Amino acid sequence: MLQPVMHVLKAKKIVLASASPRRAELIENIGLKVSLCPSLFEENLVPNEFSKFSDFVEETALHKVLEVEKRLTGMGSAPDIIIGADTMVTLDGEMFGKPTSEAEAFVMLSRLSGRSHTVYTGVVVKTGEEIVKFTESTDVQFGELDEQQIRGYIDTGEPMDKAGGYGIQGVGGTFVERVEGDYFTVVGLPLYRLCSVLYKMHKHLI
Amino acid sequence: MLQPVMHVLKAKKIVLASASPRRAELIENIGLKVSLCPSLFEENLVPNEFSKFSDFVEETALHKVLEVEKRLTGMGSAPDIIIGADTMVTLDGEMFGKPTSEAEAFVMLSRLSGRSHTVYTGVVVKTGEEIVKFTESTDVQFGELDEQQIRGYIDTGEPMDKAGGYGIQGVGGTFVERVEGDYFTVVGLPLYRLCSVLYKMHKHLI
Repeated sequence: MLQPVMHVLKAKKIVLASASPRRAELIENIGLKVSLCPSLFEENLVPNEFSKFSDFVEETALHKVLEVEKRLTGMGSAPDIIIGADTMVTLDGEMFGKPTSEAEAFVMLSRLSGRSHTVYTGVVVKTGEEIVKFTESTDVQFGELDEQQIRGYIDTGEPMDKAGGYGIQGVGGTFVERVEGDYFTVVGLPLYRLCSVLYKMHKHLI
Repeated sequence: MLQPVMHVLKAKKIVLASASPRRAELIENIGLKVSLCPSLFEENLVPNEFSKFSDFVEETALHKVLEVEKRLTGMGSAPDIIIGADTMVTLDGEMFGKPTSEAEAFVMLSRLSGRSHTVYTGVVVKTGEEIVKFTESTDVQFGELDEQQIRGYIDTGEPMDKAGGYGIQGVGGTFVERVEGDYFTVVGLPLYRLCSVLYKMHKHLI
């Protein structure tokens, strides 16, 4: 979608305020060059203080972006565009972060088994002049998993650094019967909406 | 999902009767080792002779599998498991194959723009004793594309070897507002259903 503005974007310094190799891969896969700059923001926002999941993930993404912008600007290398994102898995009104132990991963995956849950990714795109924020949500239907399948998956090590305890782009993809929404929201960066924003921001420069 | 039977599957000779690097990547990504053996089947079935799209893709997948099995067996290296698949993009009851020219790619992508279409992938899994066939379908909603975006995408070269003229796992993923169904059906191999079949076939061997 971005081809008409690609020459404009290629001349920009774009920073992804994230440590996620999956997000970097997604964005490079569509032909954009980005530098990865993990945010030092502590991610200490309290979910209960937000009335909607979308407010929480957008606010977390915004803090990541602002921290990275401040730091890079202080170092004299202010980026032209900073992209930040935060992803959260929710079930029955509860947030599932990254599991802190294998036992917690087991509980998470057992709860996701045979049911549909919702993944939210909040995104912030900031240029010098402008901030755009949005959230996409995607429903993910898991098949029924037996105990051996869950234990075997935990043994792969994949669940431990993933919100909700699974990675849809890896072995965890085999658990997912169907999705409703942007698949890439579940990977961690809603590509359609992100590219729509970047296109709108730059198409007057064609 | 396959972890409990992975040691069984790793001892098998698995062949993917396909030339698609995308299908091979998907299947290797979930930890299975496969050899790629492109089928020499001519793919000359006539769509109008089938009452359902699913019958057409399953039959094409079956012919691919049988041709590869016959050839490899003739060479004295019969595989334990052969997997074949065929993917088709449909809109308004019409099948979209791979575009044969840039002009055809332009027409296809213009028709997909701003609408939902359906992707069918038929799969055949054959062991010595058993044949399992199934088809998965996934709805794909495209955003509205302008002419420049379509022409820019065609210039990347990506559309030309893809059914429907786009690759969801590449730059074409930025056109897709939402999917309903297994995302991997659109990439070319419905992972959930395929793994369910492989699990059922082998779990008595655990």
